[in-house]
Amino acid sequence: MLPKRVEVTEVGTRDGLQSECRIVPTADKIALINAFIRAGIRRLEVSSFVSPRAVPQLADAAEVMAGIERVNGLTLACLVPNRRGAERAAAAQVDEMVAFVSASESHNQTNVNRTIRESLEGFRDVVDIAAAHGIVVHGAIATSFGCPFEGDVPTEQVVGIVGRMREMGITGVTLGDTTGMATPPIVTTLCNAIRAAHPDVAITLHFHNTRGIGLVNVMAGLQAGIDRYESSVAGLGGCPFAPDATGNICTEDLVYLLHEMGIETGIDLDALLEIARGVEPLVGHALAGQVMKAGPRLRRYSMDAVRRAVG
Amino acid sequence: MLPKRVEVTEVGTRDGLQSECRIVPTADKIALINAFIRAGIRRLEVSSFVSPRAVPQLADAAEVMAGIERVNGLTLACLVPNRRGAERAAAAQVDEMVAFVSASESHNQTNVNRTIRESLEGFRDVVDIAAAHGIVVHGAIATSFGCPFEGDVPTEQVVGIVGRMREMGITGVTLGDTTGMATPPIVTTLCNAIRAAHPDVAITLHFHNTRGIGLVNVMAGLQAGIDRYESSVAGLGGCPFAPDATGNICTEDLVYLLHEMGIETGIDLDALLEIARGVEPLVGHALAGQVMKAGPRLRRYSMDAVRRAVG
Repeated sequence: MLPKRVEVTEVGTRDGLQSECRIVPTADKIALINAFIRAGIRRLEVSSFVSPRAVPQLADAAEVMAGIERVNGLTLACLVPNRRGAERAAAAQVDEMVAFVSASESHNQTNVNRTIRESLEGFRDVVDIAAAHGIVVHGAIATSFGCPFEGDVPTEQVVGIVGRMREMGITGVTLGDTTGMATPPIVTTLCNAIRAAHPDVAITLHFHNTRGIGLVNVMAGLQAGIDRYESSVAGLGGCPFAPDATGNICTEDLVYLLHEMGIETGIDLDALLEIARGVEPLVGHALAGQVMKAGPRLRRYSMDAVRRAVG
Repeated sequence: MLPKRVEVTEVGTRDGLQSECRIVPTADKIALINAFIRAGIRRLEVSSFVSPRAVPQLADAAEVMAGIERVNGLTLACLVPNRRGAERAAAAQVDEMVAFVSASESHNQTNVNRTIRESLEGFRDVVDIAAAHGIVVHGAIATSFGCPFEGDVPTEQVVGIVGRMREMGITGVTLGDTTGMATPPIVTTLCNAIRAAHPDVAITLHFHNTRGIGLVNVMAGLQAGIDRYESSVAGLGGCPFAPDATGNICTEDLVYLLHEMGIETGIDLDALLEIARGVEPLVGHALAGQVMKAGPRLRRYSMDAVRRAVG
C-alpha cells in the first residue's frame, strides 16, 4: 500500500550548493527558498552551521535564515555539527536542527574527524541546546546504504545508530545515500529492520542518483510505506567521489513521479519547474534534472516542427 | 513475483545512433556490436533498413550486419518500414525484422506519412517476405504510453494494434515510450490489458528516460512480470522533441539495477561499462549513463583522496 501523501524536503540550498565550486550570492539563495515556499514546499534543509572555513559555500547560513518569508506549517532545518553550530542555529531560529553522523567509521572519520561514538556523544550537546530553545532535533545518518571506503554497511549498524538517537529523544531520522549505493533490496531490508526495532521513529529517505537508480529507490521506499523524501532542485549537487556523476535526486523529477502515481505533495509542479530552470544560470553549468528540460508529461508539440522519430 | 531472468536488447546502434548528428563509421559500429556480443548481449536491434536519405546515420545497415561475428543464441533484429526494407533485411540475413507503427495517428503520420491502418496493411508484405526466408517478424508500437501531439493514448488503441499484429502471426511486440511519457500506473495498466486480451503475445518494454523515470518504469514492468527490455549503451540517443532531454534508458544502468535486484541477464557488467566509456568519444559529446561515470556499487575509494562530504 503506497502512501497517499508524501513530504518532500528540498535540500538544494544545503546539500546541493555545498558541493558547488561557485558561491551563490545570499540574495539568490533567499529568493530561491522563498520561491520554493510559494510553490508549496513546506520542509527545507536551508543551510549548515558548520565552520565557514570548511564549507565557505554555506558561510551565510544565518543571513539566509533571516531572509526567509515564513508561513504556517513551514519547517526550516539546518545542519549542526556541534555545540557551536547548535547555538548559531538557535540564534537563527531554525525549526529543526539536523545532527549528523555516518554509519561507517571511515566515512565519519573523513567527514568530521571523529569516531561514530564521539559524534553520537556530541549529539547530547545539540539535543540540550535545542531543548532549551524548544527546537526539534532530527538525526541524519550518512552512508546508510553503503560506504565508499568500506563497501556494504551492515543493517544492524544503522539500526543501532537509530536506536542511540531514539534514546536521546530523536524521533525523526534521515537515511542518507551519500554516494549512491542504495538499491531497492537494501532500501526494503533497512526500512523494515528500522521499523521493526524502532516503530516510533519516522524515516526520511535521502537518495543520490549517482548510479541512475535514485528514483527507483524512492519507489522501493514508497512500497515499504515510507512517506518522507529529500531531494534537490534541478538535481543540484554532485558526488564528491566521482566528479562526473550526479548527486541528489532531483526535486521536480521526484514530484513529477509522485503526482503521476497519484500521490499528493502539496507542491505546484509547474511553479517548481520554473524555479528549476533558473538554477543552472546560478551555478554556471548544466544540471541533471530531466522534467525541467522535457516539460510536463502532456506537453503538446505541433506536428510541423518535428523531425522523424521512431522508437 | 519478479522475473528471475531478463532479456536485454541493445538498441544503441539503431535508436541511439539514429538521432546523433555525427555519422559513426561502419567499422566502429561493427566493433561496438561485436563487443556487446562478447559481453553477453544476445539480442540487438542492429540498424534500420529505411531510406538512406531519410536516415543517413543508418545507411550502412547491410555492411554492419555483414561484419557481425555471430554466435549461437544470438538474435540480430533490424527495423524494416516496407517491402523494400524487408527484402534488404532478408538479404542481410537478419534474425528478426521489426515492423513498426505508432499507436497515435498523428505520430504515425509524422513519422512515416501513413495512417495506422495503412502501416498495418504494409505489415503483410513484411510478414510474407520474412516467412519466405524463415525470418521472425517482431512488432513495435511507438507512442504506446503517450503521444507528443495527442497526449494520452487510450489503452484499447494499443491493445487493438497488438491484436492486429497477432492476427498476422506476430507474437513478440515492443511497446515504445517514444518521448518518455510512460509512468508506472500506465505501464501496469497497459501490460495487464495486453496480457488479458492476448496472453500468447510476449511484451518487450522500451522506455526513454526523458522525464527521469525510465528505470522506475522498468521496475513497474518487472512487477507486472515483464522480462524483456530494450535499452541503449551509455544512454545513447536523444529525444527528437526536447533537444536537451535524454532518450533511451541506459543499458549498463539497467543491467546494474537488474543485477542488484538479483535478476540474471547473462551480461558481464564490467565489460559493458568498458564499452560504454568508449561511446562518448564516438559521438563527440557527453552521454547520460550514470554507472559508467560512478563505477560499480562496491568501487572502493581511498580515504586520503577525498573531500569532505555529508548527506
